[in-house]
Amino acid sequence: MAQIAAERRDPLRLPELNLPAAVEVTGDDAAGLTDASVVVSAVPTQHLRETWTRLSPWLEAGVPVVSVSKGIEIDTLLRPTQVIAAATGDDPAAPSRPLGALSGPTIAAELARHLPATMVAASRDDALCAAVQSLFGTDWLRIYRNRDLVGVEIAGAVKNVIALAAGMLDGLQAGYNAKSALLARGLAEIARLGSALGAAVETFFGVAGVGDLAVTCFSPQGRNRRCGERLGCGEPLQEVLGSMVAVVEGVPTTRAVRRLAEARGVDMPITQAVHAILFEGLRPADAIGQLMRRRPKSEGFF
Amino acid sequence: MAQIAAERRDPLRLPELNLPAAVEVTGDDAAGLTDASVVVSAVPTQHLRETWTRLSPWLEAGVPVVSVSKGIEIDTLLRPTQVIAAATGDDPAAPSRPLGALSGPTIAAELARHLPATMVAASRDDALCAAVQSLFGTDWLRIYRNRDLVGVEIAGAVKNVIALAAGMLDGLQAGYNAKSALLARGLAEIARLGSALGAAVETFFGVAGVGDLAVTCFSPQGRNRRCGERLGCGEPLQEVLGSMVAVVEGVPTTRAVRRLAEARGVDMPITQAVHAILFEGLRPADAIGQLMRRRPKSEGFF
Repeated sequence: MAQIAAERRDPLRLPELNLPAAVEVTGDDAAGLTDASVVVSAVPTQHLRETWTRLSPWLEAGVPVVSVSKGIEIDTLLRPTQVIAAATGDDPAAPSRPLGALSGPTIAAELARHLPATMVAASRDDALCAAVQSLFGTDWLRIYRNRDLVGVEIAGAVKNVIALAAGMLDGLQAGYNAKSALLARGLAEIARLGSALGAAVETFFGVAGVGDLAVTCFSPQGRNRRCGERLGCGEPLQEVLGSMVAVVEGVPTTRAVRRLAEARGVDMPITQAVHAILFEGLRPADAIGQLMRRRPKSEGFF
Repeated sequence: MAQIAAERRDPLRLPELNLPAAVEVTGDDAAGLTDASVVVSAVPTQHLRETWTRLSPWLEAGVPVVSVSKGIEIDTLLRPTQVIAAATGDDPAAPSRPLGALSGPTIAAELARHLPATMVAASRDDALCAAVQSLFGTDWLRIYRNRDLVGVEIAGAVKNVIALAAGMLDGLQAGYNAKSALLARGLAEIARLGSALGAAVETFFGVAGVGDLAVTCFSPQGRNRRCGERLGCGEPLQEVLGSMVAVVEGVPTTRAVRRLAEARGVDMPITQAVHAILFEGLRPADAIGQLMRRRPKSEGFF
């Protein structure tokens, strides 16, 4: 943090972006949160609870929080905005403050160059959706509103699991046909889980659904895809994770999604295969063989 | 044809594939069709009618035809299997012979190397779906059945229009965020048109829907994407088309889809923009600006 404050950029993760003058860098919880009109929470999912438990005393009543985390908390199977609600003493099922998510296909290095992009501002609070739209929308960043917070958060979490699989296909040099089939079957299993949790199916057709899934599977820059690629090349998981600067959200999220799917009785064969590769010693090439040799059938969705 | 017969491969389009011994190459219509148990029709969409009008006398009653064409006939706005029905003296709305489509994310050069891939066998005739599944399915090519022939053919046609736009973004170096947003918004407009024509929305989630769209937008090899890329770099359309060996289905299909959307009152802003670029002199960079600057709104689908 001291280095970012001194250099006015993050030399490790995004060296090409110089922070605008209006951005203040601080490690002081009270200074960061006092008088905030909107708080954006950008914290790895498995650290959300401890972070917001610590910040909670400084978060004023009624101030909206917008999450950009993409994952599911392993122990509780809660979505990021639900964890924030719980950690700040709110009821996750009926929070007293406006909570939302901002999500979409947004590789940071491209945003830093102001290349055109889209996102979704999701909240059950229409005023928060509109506020996020006007705070962050520019002529190169188009922001859509969506009331389906569950769908947007589920899509953002599970796409990282599918991206690990996409990277494994890259590591195995399986080609674009295979990766595109994975994207389609992965989208179907994300939508199945989302539906079981009360999300609207249309959300998965949207920029925070299939849009984010596509960028995560096809951009060479994605962390989860890159981690999967190294696994596909035969590197052990601990070695890959040990050498990466950034958090690979897909790895813990695979555990959480698999448990969530089991608890809800949702069939998620790709997630199961990724889980078996990450934690049970299955080889990626054998997983493809198993998926390809399932009994020929109708294409099923829900 | 003589060259393919002599060399047992197509040196122009797929030099890496040697034809299996069981494949006979012939230009004799009668020899090609007599005693066929299934006919696979691989003809550019705008040439389907003349080809099948010529072949019709040799096509025996009740013999199924499976189409792999991806487009819409400009003058009639009919789908490939409808054109085949009409040209062989059948009723396009209630054909007497089994008709089907075989479609999916299948870059030919990858199939030639037996890399893993998926397709959909679509027909209202269940026996034809099952026959195609067992004729073409292998342990590296997984074939799903789908009764939604309309959806599979519409998805295959319109994805080429979206791929032209994806290529233009590549030519403009707009990045992965933009192309992934295009994929999502393109899928929504394909699904809107399909729904208006009676297709099942689930089909667009499938391998012949979003799967084929993804491979067409992201594989460097796709003809339509490549054509769009050269347009995005500023080359005139006639020059691009004149220099390409293969048919770029997306160009005539853009005319057809735009007319179909107008006739059915379906909002297809990306197709309209591609039409304006191809045929009305709009510059690709200006089209992006127009799409990005539309009024901020909810993400709409149907």
